Amino acid sequence: MKELKIFTPATIANVSCGFDVLGLALDTVGDEMTIRKVAEKGVRITKITGQSVPLETQKNVSGVAALALLAEINTDFGFEIEIDKRIKPGSGIGSSAASSAGAVWAINKLLGDPFSTKDLVRFAMEGERLASGVPHADNVAPALFGGFTLVRSYEPLDIINIHTPSELYVTVIHPQIEVKTSDAREILKTTVTLKNAIKQWGNVGGLISGLYTEDYDLIGRSLEDFIVEPIRSILIPAFDLLKLESVKAGALGCGISGSGPSVFALSKGKDTALKVAEAMRIVYDKVGVPYDIHVSKVNKEGIKILESK
Amino acid sequence: MKELKIFTPATIANVSCGFDVLGLALDTVGDEMTIRKVAEKGVRITKITGQSVPLETQKNVSGVAALALLAEINTDFGFEIEIDKRIKPGSGIGSSAASSAGAVWAINKLLGDPFSTKDLVRFAMEGERLASGVPHADNVAPALFGGFTLVRSYEPLDIINIHTPSELYVTVIHPQIEVKTSDAREILKTTVTLKNAIKQWGNVGGLISGLYTEDYDLIGRSLEDFIVEPIRSILIPAFDLLKLESVKAGALGCGISGSGPSVFALSKGKDTALKVAEAMRIVYDKVGVPYDIHVSKVNKEGIKILESK
Repeated sequence: MKELKIFTPATIANVSCGFDVLGLALDTVGDEMTIRKVAEKGVRITKITGQSVPLETQKNVSGVAALALLAEINTDFGFEIEIDKRIKPGSGIGSSAASSAGAVWAINKLLGDPFSTKDLVRFAMEGERLASGVPHADNVAPALFGGFTLVRSYEPLDIINIHTPSELYVTVIHPQIEVKTSDAREILKTTVTLKNAIKQWGNVGGLISGLYTEDYDLIGRSLEDFIVEPIRSILIPAFDLLKLESVKAGALGCGISGSGPSVFALSKGKDTALKVAEAMRIVYDKVGVPYDIHVSKVNKEGIKILESK
Repeated sequence: MKELKIFTPATIANVSCGFDVLGLALDTVGDEMTIRKVAEKGVRITKITGQSVPLETQKNVSGVAALALLAEINTDFGFEIEIDKRIKPGSGIGSSAASSAGAVWAINKLLGDPFSTKDLVRFAMEGERLASGVPHADNVAPALFGGFTLVRSYEPLDIINIHTPSELYVTVIHPQIEVKTSDAREILKTTVTLKNAIKQWGNVGGLISGLYTEDYDLIGRSLEDFIVEPIRSILIPAFDLLKLESVKAGALGCGISGSGPSVFALSKGKDTALKVAEAMRIVYDKVGVPYDIHVSKVNKEGIKILESK
């Protein structure tokens, strides 16, 4: 095997109550990447289509992640990366994570799987460090593991793959305004009230419990964020109305995807997720900001091979 | 059925990372209560042995809880309560919760189960309000549901019964010093850093996940408390040494039971839990403070009927 073409998914980080720890992978939204073993050592980004991101290895998140992997193994060959970037950078659905995770996942496969998935998370986090200044794992973990993931701890890195009910669908709207992860992080307060923190970890417990027991009502009741959403939602036009109409249309819950501006809703079943998409569309047609809407099952597999040579 | 003699368990609230939301029930430590249907309306505490607690209905936690229940149903008879109080008040293993929960559970049984377990939690919380000024549910919920419970939310009250692995044992040491719940609450800060809050809800997620998947290592890794233990542990003689020696003896983790002064450790299997008890004993024999030590399986059933007439 010398070449792999892969699908690498968009991801929703935080998932309301799980700020900085929870994430989930999408199925119908993601980048396509081709990774090729070549004689020349090192990593080169040879082609980027779809979006404008840097070609220079050291400035490209997939390049940096790939170099982090190759720093831990001796090879007498190198890799070329082609990216068909379908996730818009800055959309809040893990654009940089998809590229970082995809690169290291495919290189690991081409090398015969010398690294564990947890190692791959570690390498891909270097791409995240380049993208936002913070080597967070809440997008790269679900991209690499699939389904819902929990980053229990960073020191040491401890990623838990959470059971994902089969009927869980995501509707995500991307209002085409720019919210930089670094800006979205800066407006957060560095302290929170103990009272709100307790509510938040009560909901994290409820959400995880609901996922394992496939209790969709409990999942819905737990999709509340007392800490981050009240602050960040002011950056997203018509956020409150999106949430209200999504829940009216049958969504279990609705919140900010990552640091925004995308907004996600979880639903039981595809029909409801499509109704939620329609409700979001009606809200945003009035707002007048351009947008994309995606409907996707939660992707239990993560990255997928499209072709191999 | 006119009379029930029950065992009503001691409980461990908080369970390290789950401050104010998590709790578990013990099997070998608890009060015995006899609840009797009598012609005279109302509730009377007719006998208390073992510990000195008020006989007057309005001042006794089980009396107050029982009255809260009877306020929501019409009966043309009343109840007598006898309590053999084996859990010392102020020990931090849910002494008041055992009495409150036991009273309402038995009365509900004698009435033919008109109320749900969640209703019983609500009534028993009135006993907790009397005991500590705060109607918390993290002890009464595990006493009534058994196993591990999560109080996801208070408004509305939402209690989740968490899957409990069969090999989970508790070792609990009760240093006989007084720590009042109200004092233990007062020394807490009203704000916490977002950074510590994130670590805490990461651990709540990890613990719940470990319970469902019966991953004892993950349970152990998640038994960390960044918020409350660093403050409250100063009230407990030799806490750090207890923790160190418990983990050395094989415990998965160790923390403060409720608001203290009791300290609990979780272990996989009874043999390890007994070794942990021995390690705690060696520490406390040097400290010179009198103590009790209990070893118990996590009690999946909660309150149990000992006799019925």
